[in-house]
Amino acid sequence: MPIPESDLIRRIRNQTKSRGGRLRLGVGDDCAILRPRAQEELVVTTDLSLEGTHFRLNWHTPESIGHRCLARGLSDVAAMGARPLACFLSLGLPAKTKQSWVNGFLRGLLELSERHSCPLAGGDTGESKSGVVADITVVGTVPHGKSLLRSGAKAGDTIYVTGVLGAAAAGLKSLASGAASRRSRNWIERHNWPEPRIQIGIDLREKRLARAMIDISDGLSVDLAHICEESSVGAVLNRELIPVAQNADLDLALHGGEDYELLFTAPSNAKVPVEVKGVPITEIGWITSQHGVYITDLRSKAKRLTAKGWQYFSR
Amino acid sequence: MPIPESDLIRRIRNQTKSRGGRLRLGVGDDCAILRPRAQEELVVTTDLSLEGTHFRLNWHTPESIGHRCLARGLSDVAAMGARPLACFLSLGLPAKTKQSWVNGFLRGLLELSERHSCPLAGGDTGESKSGVVADITVVGTVPHGKSLLRSGAKAGDTIYVTGVLGAAAAGLKSLASGAASRRSRNWIERHNWPEPRIQIGIDLREKRLARAMIDISDGLSVDLAHICEESSVGAVLNRELIPVAQNADLDLALHGGEDYELLFTAPSNAKVPVEVKGVPITEIGWITSQHGVYITDLRSKAKRLTAKGWQYFSR
Repeated sequence: MPIPESDLIRRIRNQTKSRGGRLRLGVGDDCAILRPRAQEELVVTTDLSLEGTHFRLNWHTPESIGHRCLARGLSDVAAMGARPLACFLSLGLPAKTKQSWVNGFLRGLLELSERHSCPLAGGDTGESKSGVVADITVVGTVPHGKSLLRSGAKAGDTIYVTGVLGAAAAGLKSLASGAASRRSRNWIERHNWPEPRIQIGIDLREKRLARAMIDISDGLSVDLAHICEESSVGAVLNRELIPVAQNADLDLALHGGEDYELLFTAPSNAKVPVEVKGVPITEIGWITSQHGVYITDLRSKAKRLTAKGWQYFSR
Repeated sequence: MPIPESDLIRRIRNQTKSRGGRLRLGVGDDCAILRPRAQEELVVTTDLSLEGTHFRLNWHTPESIGHRCLARGLSDVAAMGARPLACFLSLGLPAKTKQSWVNGFLRGLLELSERHSCPLAGGDTGESKSGVVADITVVGTVPHGKSLLRSGAKAGDTIYVTGVLGAAAAGLKSLASGAASRRSRNWIERHNWPEPRIQIGIDLREKRLARAMIDISDGLSVDLAHICEESSVGAVLNRELIPVAQNADLDLALHGGEDYELLFTAPSNAKVPVEVKGVPITEIGWITSQHGVYITDLRSKAKRLTAKGWQYFSR
């Protein structure tokens, strides 16, 4: 097993120490110890990133792979309206993995973890007989009973989405095609460095604006269907309102995934801001009591929207 | 991705529901939600099990692989003196994996999780381009500040170990050699179905008997060295006292690993029971202020004990 360089180990231990109250003990014992404050619940998510399925060593830099690995977990925490507390990494590496690759991976992960005050508090390593395997567990805190669930949507709610959609999927598509134009370089950046919407999630919870929330890393159509299923409702999207990224297309915005934006519903009279710290928040449709997800341009009959996420790697 | 049969999904959801207070929300949202009681801390551990490194499909049944995967995490929770609350599974499977294998794996894992009231509260699945990958995260609870750490040992403490040692490593050795005698079948059982010492860990904490504790799944010599390092002390083992399993040998007991027993230190006047619910607790040595780990038979000069874990799979 390659052992990370001592400055990285030091950085990991320093991260652990700097946290103060809630993280009592980080790397170095059988378990880490977390002490939430009174009236706080913990949210927990795990996300498995596998070479060849979630990333490719010839497409992605080690820094981007580390960043994306943690971003997946942080985005789930954001979708609960929770605040990150600590993360845990299980990393399986082929024996031939270079130390420089491991360092790059950890740098990418640690940069994001530091920015979100989510120290790496433990984990495991092992020799993988095949590809790179990275499983991230992220723990966050939220006041008792205040998590934003998928099940809270009500008929009449307005549906909102953060950011613009489709660029990250377009970036992955151009990585897969091997053609990197000037335009696609911007997309690839969006694919490589997704930014989990932690602060927006917290704001929406604290201001009691959202009733149901989910992250749309699997694709808007798939994840909206999850909200509808868990809330026993349906939805209509207004095709004209979907915030499609520059030069991307509606299909990628609806089904491309990889966006790590938040989808939420709010009562129709809620005062939802049009942007938070430069990130647009766009109204894209409404919740219905009738089941099923539809899309319309308001001029023609609404069409049933098939929930599908792009599955690049399996093609 | 193979989807587990609906009775297994039902069993997982039922486990999640049956827990009551501390597990507020299990499988089905972006995150699970845990609500520890007032004055409780949470302990968290992750353990990565990789095909070819931690198990082999032609040596281990799927049930045993699932059991062992969770046992690794539960044993870490036991070593803190904590009570399991919930577990999370990330499972990467090759596309060719049979549904019956997945069912067997989950049965093995769920049987152990039910026995220890540690419901499967979430996780992730993905297609592995190569071998089976299973990462388990286990969360446990412990009263504020009461975790048993590796760093609590003091010079003069007596060293104890639970159970008998060496059988599981002998079982793995005979699996590797392909020779399954009547004798080795018993060892293989021990290897396949390790029993994490949850209740003993809780007893030792509640009765304030142990000062430092660790699980010795990596091997007695390696894990005792961890205690010494974290506590800035040394240790002497009495060779005659090591509880070697029937027909195993001292070398396997010291270095074989796979035992999932607990090693702990206690003040020399502590009233440590000689067994808990049929599991022997054996005094095997003492902690010294002088650094280094030694072994002696009390008749000849103590020898330095090299910390080494067996690495079957890398040979």
